[in-house]
Amino acid sequence: MEALRVGLAGLGTVGAGVLDLLDRNGAVLAQRCGRRIDVTGICARSRTKNRAVDVSRFEWFDDPVRLAENPSIDVLVELIGGADGPARACVEAALDAGKHVVTANKALLAEHGTSLARRAEEKGLALNFEAAVAGGIPIVKTLRESLSGNQVKRVFGILNGTCNYILTRMQNEGQPFAQVLADAQRAGYAEADPTFDVDGHDTAHKLSILTSLAFGTEVSFDAVYMEGIRSITPADIDAAEELGYRIKLLGVALRTDGGIEQRVHPTMLPKNSAIAQVDGVLNCVAVDGDFAGEILLVGPGAGARPTASSVVSDLADIARGVVRPAFTVAARTMRPHIRAPIRAHEGGYYIRLSVYDRPGAFAAIANRMAEEGISLESIVQKRAAAGLPGSGRLSTVNGPTPVVMITHETTEAAIRQALESIEADGHVDEKPQMIRIEKL
Amino acid sequence: MEALRVGLAGLGTVGAGVLDLLDRNGAVLAQRCGRRIDVTGICARSRTKNRAVDVSRFEWFDDPVRLAENPSIDVLVELIGGADGPARACVEAALDAGKHVVTANKALLAEHGTSLARRAEEKGLALNFEAAVAGGIPIVKTLRESLSGNQVKRVFGILNGTCNYILTRMQNEGQPFAQVLADAQRAGYAEADPTFDVDGHDTAHKLSILTSLAFGTEVSFDAVYMEGIRSITPADIDAAEELGYRIKLLGVALRTDGGIEQRVHPTMLPKNSAIAQVDGVLNCVAVDGDFAGEILLVGPGAGARPTASSVVSDLADIARGVVRPAFTVAARTMRPHIRAPIRAHEGGYYIRLSVYDRPGAFAAIANRMAEEGISLESIVQKRAAAGLPGSGRLSTVNGPTPVVMITHETTEAAIRQALESIEADGHVDEKPQMIRIEKL
Repeated sequence: MEALRVGLAGLGTVGAGVLDLLDRNGAVLAQRCGRRIDVTGICARSRTKNRAVDVSRFEWFDDPVRLAENPSIDVLVELIGGADGPARACVEAALDAGKHVVTANKALLAEHGTSLARRAEEKGLALNFEAAVAGGIPIVKTLRESLSGNQVKRVFGILNGTCNYILTRMQNEGQPFAQVLADAQRAGYAEADPTFDVDGHDTAHKLSILTSLAFGTEVSFDAVYMEGIRSITPADIDAAEELGYRIKLLGVALRTDGGIEQRVHPTMLPKNSAIAQVDGVLNCVAVDGDFAGEILLVGPGAGARPTASSVVSDLADIARGVVRPAFTVAARTMRPHIRAPIRAHEGGYYIRLSVYDRPGAFAAIANRMAEEGISLESIVQKRAAAGLPGSGRLSTVNGPTPVVMITHETTEAAIRQALESIEADGHVDEKPQMIRIEKL
Repeated sequence: MEALRVGLAGLGTVGAGVLDLLDRNGAVLAQRCGRRIDVTGICARSRTKNRAVDVSRFEWFDDPVRLAENPSIDVLVELIGGADGPARACVEAALDAGKHVVTANKALLAEHGTSLARRAEEKGLALNFEAAVAGGIPIVKTLRESLSGNQVKRVFGILNGTCNYILTRMQNEGQPFAQVLADAQRAGYAEADPTFDVDGHDTAHKLSILTSLAFGTEVSFDAVYMEGIRSITPADIDAAEELGYRIKLLGVALRTDGGIEQRVHPTMLPKNSAIAQVDGVLNCVAVDGDFAGEILLVGPGAGARPTASSVVSDLADIARGVVRPAFTVAARTMRPHIRAPIRAHEGGYYIRLSVYDRPGAFAAIANRMAEEGISLESIVQKRAAAGLPGSGRLSTVNGPTPVVMITHETTEAAIRQALESIEADGHVDEKPQMIRIEKL
């Protein structure tokens, strides 16, 4: 059978990883696919840049759209990045020209996934994106194919390696966010401008893709509720540890009676759960299916080689002639996304308050919680060094008293109202900290 | 498009689970597959047995071979079980009659996988078996498809829920094996005759399937080295805890220069690893790919609903017209399995000895290890209550002294020789305990 001819747009680390993989493992890949997968044309910004891989053997294109349209390729692999610009232009050009598309571009899919899926479907083409979510973890295929027989209740995960690296180091070393971030930037684990990672945008992009795969709804990145990890302090890390939790930045998509919750925020997870052990730059995704039960996938969430592995698995499917709907169901049957408002979220909460040490302060706080019908599972109040072991950093000397509460299940609306009232009462000296607890 | 017509052979818990899934989720499944999946014929031992599902709506067959050959079906789902007998007969009949096959039968695949794959391939038919390994965990698809671009170095996992349940309870409760087994039998987590589970056969069946999927070699169940969990004592569980490990029954397939190691045995795993947190009846599988890195999948390893989820995902692929080689590569190109002998295994070892308390005993033991070139990473020797916290059960009063050693990497041949010499020297009062440490 003839080789599958690939046009590769974008020669950054992932593009170089794909070329490296095909060089090293091309023979075994061909055995598994029943045909070879050969890169024939490539495109990048600079033709003369010094690269680890020899690219002189490929036909060079300066314009990714020209590559996409070229009759010499069967598939376009888009590794340029960005929701619009040349990435979007060449993907659309490829589909219009009748070429399959493989992309690792989460921003593109988060912003334009539904319309691209429709375009691909009209022409009977594949739009594959295993590498767009969680790097080397095969979560797209798992949701698209392995869980076909399931109604998914929830899909959630640790989807950003930078945040997980920072939180893991904060956990292990007791350092504050800013210091760990600076270290991470020096070590190359965080960008010079970390906003996109630490404020949750990257996780939200990936989550919006998982949501559509799991629920067959239109991709709705704008409907993702988003909080990053900048507000997490060593006091929170310590209190979590003491109460039996770990803090992770999760993306969570949950089917509720009122619509689908899509939320990205720091989350308390039971310390002994497998997901709480997913540390450093690792990613993980968990899916609750009504028949499969809870399936957890863990692996490298980024990097040239894991991402190349996922890109190539997408190519392998195309080489085998397999074309499936991009988001699990036929694009023309994807339902509109109905957003469940974050205020309707139900769950337990971790609350940390810095309370002025005066008579009646704590009673006032307890009353405000009671007014909203919130009951407490546990309360930890400390002074100075009188804490439990390991709680040193939670304590203050001669200042306000830290009070940490874990609530039973309640609603976001109730918690927000209670915290607003507590703040207005003037018994706390800083904005209350609130971290959602995810039930496992 | 016309419905995919399924013949279901075997109506135990999994068969009933498949009917239940198709009843509940048939509509969404049809949307995902582009066509309906309908059971048309069924076959079981007793037609009159009281069942939770209504089976009167299906055509009844007394003989699974007749069902397999019947022109009214496109696919046979074999859920009878057993390596030979009616299960094998109906699978072979189905393939001969040009029907795709889906099976959850690990024994059948472990014993006859290669020849069945060849038979399916000659006719261009699917032989799918996601449910045969690790229940609801999509490990077959992951190895067959998602890791197509990888050379796999190792695949390993916790593949038997009964053993994991027993070890977890031994860990949590400090009870000996026999007592926990008896409890597990009463609770329905272990069979009346537990041999197949606790001695490692079930794990070995599944491992032999994973090996072929990962390495493209012929299925070689006979080449699996096998040890069960009967020999694990509370003293081992305690010593492991103290040294930072958990004990799990693993199946491990490892590519080495001398061939492929297939081994099933209790294994020490670092306590804080994600895999060590996989407790109770959960299963997990980890794969080391040269590009993907280490991917870990965790989920329910058995049960009607998770297993049905996997059976139906196999059907969904067939409904979509996807037919792939059963064991990743074309069956005619599967290579002979080359067995790496267990004596060539390299790794660290946990050794527990019960040493007579007399001058020179320990020196003699240390010399025997040194003679074989084995160096020790740590040694814990205890008397009575003088141990570290939590080590109570490791100690004995007035008897021989328990000595626990962790070795650096060595070979199985060296360890066995050293332990043989130590036993022959007469300084120990029982057969040395030896548990392999798996490097993560």
